Amino acid sequence: MLIDGRPMRAIWEAGDGSVNILDQAVLPHRVRVVTLACLDDAVRAIAEMQVRGAPLIGVTAAWGLALAMEADPSDAGLATARSRLAASRPTAVNLAWALDRVARVLGRLAPSERRAAARKEAATLAEEDVTVCRRIGEHGADLIAQIAERKGLVNILTHCNAGWLATVDWGTALAPIYVARERAIDLHVWVDETRPRNQGAALTAFELGQAGVPHTIIVDNAGGHLMQHGRVDLVLVGADRITSTGDTANKIGTYLKALAAADSGIPFHVAAPSSTIDWTMSDGLAEIPIEEREEAEVTHLEGILADGGLARIRVSALGSPAANYAFDVTPARLITGLITERGTCAATATAIRTLFP
Amino acid sequence: MLIDGRPMRAIWEAGDGSVNILDQAVLPHRVRVVTLACLDDAVRAIAEMQVRGAPLIGVTAAWGLALAMEADPSDAGLATARSRLAASRPTAVNLAWALDRVARVLGRLAPSERRAAARKEAATLAEEDVTVCRRIGEHGADLIAQIAERKGLVNILTHCNAGWLATVDWGTALAPIYVARERAIDLHVWVDETRPRNQGAALTAFELGQAGVPHTIIVDNAGGHLMQHGRVDLVLVGADRITSTGDTANKIGTYLKALAAADSGIPFHVAAPSSTIDWTMSDGLAEIPIEEREEAEVTHLEGILADGGLARIRVSALGSPAANYAFDVTPARLITGLITERGTCAATATAIRTLFP
Repeated sequence: MLIDGRPMRAIWEAGDGSVNILDQAVLPHRVRVVTLACLDDAVRAIAEMQVRGAPLIGVTAAWGLALAMEADPSDAGLATARSRLAASRPTAVNLAWALDRVARVLGRLAPSERRAAARKEAATLAEEDVTVCRRIGEHGADLIAQIAERKGLVNILTHCNAGWLATVDWGTALAPIYVARERAIDLHVWVDETRPRNQGAALTAFELGQAGVPHTIIVDNAGGHLMQHGRVDLVLVGADRITSTGDTANKIGTYLKALAAADSGIPFHVAAPSSTIDWTMSDGLAEIPIEEREEAEVTHLEGILADGGLARIRVSALGSPAANYAFDVTPARLITGLITERGTCAATATAIRTLFP
Repeated sequence: MLIDGRPMRAIWEAGDGSVNILDQAVLPHRVRVVTLACLDDAVRAIAEMQVRGAPLIGVTAAWGLALAMEADPSDAGLATARSRLAASRPTAVNLAWALDRVARVLGRLAPSERRAAARKEAATLAEEDVTVCRRIGEHGADLIAQIAERKGLVNILTHCNAGWLATVDWGTALAPIYVARERAIDLHVWVDETRPRNQGAALTAFELGQAGVPHTIIVDNAGGHLMQHGRVDLVLVGADRITSTGDTANKIGTYLKALAAADSGIPFHVAAPSSTIDWTMSDGLAEIPIEEREEAEVTHLEGILADGGLARIRVSALGSPAANYAFDVTPARLITGLITERGTCAATATAIRTLFP
């Protein structure tokens, strides 16, 4: 997708063996490219959320393994790199999926062959992510087109950022919106700001603005009100982990929007690549680990002053503690359907298994 | 209640004919007393939310009428003051209720008698608010005590600020918590930060901290997750307007918490004085006017820098528009009960009418 009219991806090879990312901790206030040159860089980028979004975390982890192989391609080096990367964020299953996939290839090779193989596999994984997201976009755009045929302008509500910045390109929940725009479908996006880290107000609004998609930022509290009043036709969100039964972990607050959509009879769809499905789990509430992050993400906010400088402020009462749960689980019963690279299906074990036999 | 151990109210007579308030736009970062000396001051304090909270808006409006009578006690002066104050905020019905009550008294008097009568009526109204809130606290504490008997520690989730800062003293939703603490009931409060203006993180956390009540700030997105996992025993919120059928307008996002409470079988109670009931309305979604405020409240935040200075930052993407709906309506079907100065009742037309014949 575009930044200032120039095609960009969220991660790309730098040419000198290292990998570049956009620092998403300072977007949209600064467009800063950060170079990942070693395993430590990749672990830090994931843990500190310079990259975030389940698919992009997976691709970054794959590149992290490749960078680690440059320094130490031994079995011990591979095991250490894999376990450090796996521990960098707990909830997104794409991370483990990508590490498994690259490590499986490397495990069959002699250490001397691992450098080149790891780079090749990471690059392949990144290219596949682009293809998969584009397909999600096509399938999701079909859904949007059906609503547009019935009522003209389509109002879509999304939570957090599941756009191209959460993947390599295109995105998951936003890919259908970008493809629908290519098809000249008239739409408008309600952007949940998505506290505590404001990925909606910062990243989704930035993406949509750069792509010329009409949108309006709202606080996370507002979606229910809009749905009650017929101002939302479709809720589209991404996912960090989907159980084999369709329960979906996504950014904290997603569950509340699913409840509101169900209460107003509005379709609620989860867009995600199949690498987000955790085939080992069947009960999302009981089984999916929910990351707890530092309380300062709740009590303090970063943004830009009137003079253009970056600043960090405390908004809460001094001395009051905060808790910071990063994800919640939306039970499958509240999900109208999943949008995957193979098409759409109901959020049930049978339907998911039928699409992915 | 206390600030730094000193008893305070949210509004009080200054002694020289004017009225003092705590500037709630800068709390908790600054404890600043603002003097309201004329009608303009009172209108501005309400519109700019130096005072907020339905009961406190009502009392401030009553004092606003009294200040207006000092300058112009004529019929025209009374009519102008009343209409300007009524237009200062649209959703809280206590505003109209307080204005009606004071104006009814003044309308029966000659202009020359209005100055003293208006002051007396405003002072009476303020004292009544304290008594009413204390009673709400007693009735609500009985509810908390029942839960405590069953399970020990009671976890209460609240949204926005319906504490003493939203009234003259004690509060509505927080009054039961303060009374329960007097009764040595073990409790902990989850404080929704309450975007966009952070009345939870700023005001409720400040109040609870000053009163020594254990509490934890969470983002508005987190309540559903906590309820799914059995971490909330009771949801207690205030109200800006309650229809005769129990539909309740309260701070935007309240509806989402009511949905989550219903989904997890957690009691959801609305605490409010009877002056919050709008007997003329029976359909909250269709009839209660919902205030829309400026978009800068969503895109920008105020807080305190590391050096102690106040600063205002933009957190959202430059150029992205925002919408700012200040309230939503929770349908009566999602409300377990109302807590009023006369006791508790179901959120139904019959139960409300039985309590207030």
